[in-house]
Amino acid sequence: MQKHNFSAGPCVLPKEVLQKASESVLNFNNDNLSLLEISHRSKPFVDVMENARALALELLGLEGKGYKALFLQGGASMQFLMVAQNLLEKRAAYLNTGTWANNAVKEARIFDDILEVASSKDANYNYIPKGYDIPEDHDYFHCTSNNTIFGTQMKTFPNSPIPMVCDMSSDIFSRSLDFSQFDLIYAGAQKNMGPAGTTLVVVKEDILGKVSRKIPSMLDYKVHIGKGSMFNTPPVFPIYVSMLTMQWLKDLGGIAAIEKENEKKARLIYSEIDLNPLFKGFAAKEDRSDMNATFSLINDDLKETFETMVQEAGINGLNGHRSVGGYRASMYNALTLDSVKVLVEVMSELEHKA
Amino acid sequence: MQKHNFSAGPCVLPKEVLQKASESVLNFNNDNLSLLEISHRSKPFVDVMENARALALELLGLEGKGYKALFLQGGASMQFLMVAQNLLEKRAAYLNTGTWANNAVKEARIFDDILEVASSKDANYNYIPKGYDIPEDHDYFHCTSNNTIFGTQMKTFPNSPIPMVCDMSSDIFSRSLDFSQFDLIYAGAQKNMGPAGTTLVVVKEDILGKVSRKIPSMLDYKVHIGKGSMFNTPPVFPIYVSMLTMQWLKDLGGIAAIEKENEKKARLIYSEIDLNPLFKGFAAKEDRSDMNATFSLINDDLKETFETMVQEAGINGLNGHRSVGGYRASMYNALTLDSVKVLVEVMSELEHKA
Repeated sequence: MQKHNFSAGPCVLPKEVLQKASESVLNFNNDNLSLLEISHRSKPFVDVMENARALALELLGLEGKGYKALFLQGGASMQFLMVAQNLLEKRAAYLNTGTWANNAVKEARIFDDILEVASSKDANYNYIPKGYDIPEDHDYFHCTSNNTIFGTQMKTFPNSPIPMVCDMSSDIFSRSLDFSQFDLIYAGAQKNMGPAGTTLVVVKEDILGKVSRKIPSMLDYKVHIGKGSMFNTPPVFPIYVSMLTMQWLKDLGGIAAIEKENEKKARLIYSEIDLNPLFKGFAAKEDRSDMNATFSLINDDLKETFETMVQEAGINGLNGHRSVGGYRASMYNALTLDSVKVLVEVMSELEHKA
Repeated sequence: MQKHNFSAGPCVLPKEVLQKASESVLNFNNDNLSLLEISHRSKPFVDVMENARALALELLGLEGKGYKALFLQGGASMQFLMVAQNLLEKRAAYLNTGTWANNAVKEARIFDDILEVASSKDANYNYIPKGYDIPEDHDYFHCTSNNTIFGTQMKTFPNSPIPMVCDMSSDIFSRSLDFSQFDLIYAGAQKNMGPAGTTLVVVKEDILGKVSRKIPSMLDYKVHIGKGSMFNTPPVFPIYVSMLTMQWLKDLGGIAAIEKENEKKARLIYSEIDLNPLFKGFAAKEDRSDMNATFSLINDDLKETFETMVQEAGINGLNGHRSVGGYRASMYNALTLDSVKVLVEVMSELEHKA
């Protein structure tokens, strides 16, 4: 039975990427060796790493603009720490749009006090705060572009007078933006880029080297840049699969092409949520995420019926996060419009049944 | 052509493990979903994680002895930092047996001064120092059980009056030891345990929580223990392949069984190095590693001939590290005795030719 995988992450990846990834575990590069058992210093893997780093900059339109791409370990949670380690000298400004933004603040507080420029905590993070000020005398401004748990997404970004750092874990490579407005972008791979186990960091080199503390080697962006993202053994397989996924995206036509698909998928599901009297959306309409649609049944008596129908349709990973409840349809790059159609059909059938 | 993979790491893994790993990328758990696209909170993956943690303790004979096993990210290099973050209050004692031991000291020095109890730097680390004292008033003693680059291995461990921390990245699960003499063991996966991308940490819980500094969440062993090694999204695929490799080892008869094989392989190669007049070993005989045999040609004129023969025999990854030169035969658990026989035959043929 075909599965429709709406998991929030790790999540659906393109079929052709999975096929190549599976083959590489048995025989990589036609060399009769597994990708898992070759040296990371061998030419075939160095080529993978360099290709992955170049593709990341190319897809984001950041080639030749002073940025470096790194593939590190530890997920966004490690970046919460590394960003502060590398950039926080006196004080930093954070926008609080939910759980992950909060966790980023928590790790940065180990170094110094943090200014929360605005927060949507008052409404369980169902909207994106706007109209806040970013103070010029702070070291950097940190925001989270998409909030997986709450289903909100920043549609515009502030004109920051200080370096802007953005956690794009859940919407990297999903929509066109002027990425040069950011000085540091990071993203755990396991949504739009690849499997769990590596984290993309794209950093403008000239913001580095300005703090006075001694930074441990593994947490120092400059160390990783100096070693071509190979300071120590990198997570070979997750980086290879990320490279394949970026190549798949490039072949499709890049971010501009996938953005159109993502918009179609989002319009379809939100239109059903709004028109179907059995459902209601969670996030404020203007801040709705194109990646994660959060919604719930108005009448919980239909829960069992709906969930049985969902299961019978081969739909996977639709449960909402415990902080919000209800349902969450995650529609990352590799999820097809057809899968969204299947879900919308189930929602519509429920209306006819009820 | 069959390959004989003597890579120092990432390195050879069992064929049946690679087969299952490859299948899991297309269809895991007969669920018609890839292992790479399921939630790490789903039951099938939570089972993998718990099984991997249990197998690590079982293989080391540390069940029910107050230890916890974790699968983290960042390799041994991240452990150089985490060990000091979590255990170093005043001063720590390190044994310097080579490059990796040095790197461990370097990261710990960010926190405080470090005592080097002994060093074999005077002889380019070709032996293991013995007869040193470990001061009682230090926080912990750190050593490296096997030195991949130099081909030396600690055959016995000191009776340490303070907690003993051991980097076993390159010989974990390869030989029987009383593992309860260690308070913290860590090992990057990419030798005897699995592919690059995860690091095993086995820690005795009662040594934790004794430093006064505030530890960042991602660097705090207690945080990872509290979350069952799932504080954030773990590196799913590297952990799964590590679990398969540990299961393979258990099915073989565990460490005691593989140790016999490893001894046979080591005896074979060292006997050839000692008896063949064209070669000489690098490491002091009593400290020779069963995992990595370092040797070189006495007469460099034979280099080209030897290396051509090596290549024609399908032997891969035999180049020595630049700090030592010559050759290095890494003979981790999954390398077969037959592969060592092929190498020894090539060395012996060279003698007949020369």
